[in-house]
Amino acid sequence: MFKVKIYINLKEGVADPQGATIKHALDSIGYQKIGKVKTGKYLQLELDMHDKNKAREQIEDMCQKILVNPVIENYEYQIEEIK
Amino acid sequence: MFKVKIYINLKEGVADPQGATIKHALDSIGYQKIGKVKTGKYLQLELDMHDKNKAREQIEDMCQKILVNPVIENYEYQIEEIK
Repeated sequence: MFKVKIYINLKEGVADPQGATIKHALDSIGYQKIGKVKTGKYLQLELDMHDKNKAREQIEDMCQKILVNPVIENYEYQIEEIK
Repeated sequence: MFKVKIYINLKEGVADPQGATIKHALDSIGYQKIGKVKTGKYLQLELDMHDKNKAREQIEDMCQKILVNPVIENYEYQIEEIK
């Protein structure tokens, strides 16, 4: 059994209005030192598999086919065995 | 200057319809081994500060005041110095 954490980000250059809004909100309540803010998605899922290489293959397949929009998003993941 | 990655999760027991929808979508296209799916937010921001302790204080303050809803969400963060 694996626990998988997937981090999905907008690619460099893709407009991120949610990030801009958060930056503006932080600035406006007095946090002065904020640079760029980027928003993304964070998924955690459990995979009931035993072979780590197969698990990696399946994760990449799921990301490329359904979880991530490869035109505008990048992804990274961490995989951790749980008992 | 610090680069901060903030991971915001729904607390245990809070309904996560988006996670359920993703699980259902993965099941329905043939990925059989998927357990629980949880969704969250992932923020990356730059902090133009030099003292790591002060940066941590500010991050926690921002999370508690504006970025996170403490009734239903948990957060973790990583902070990394950049040149």
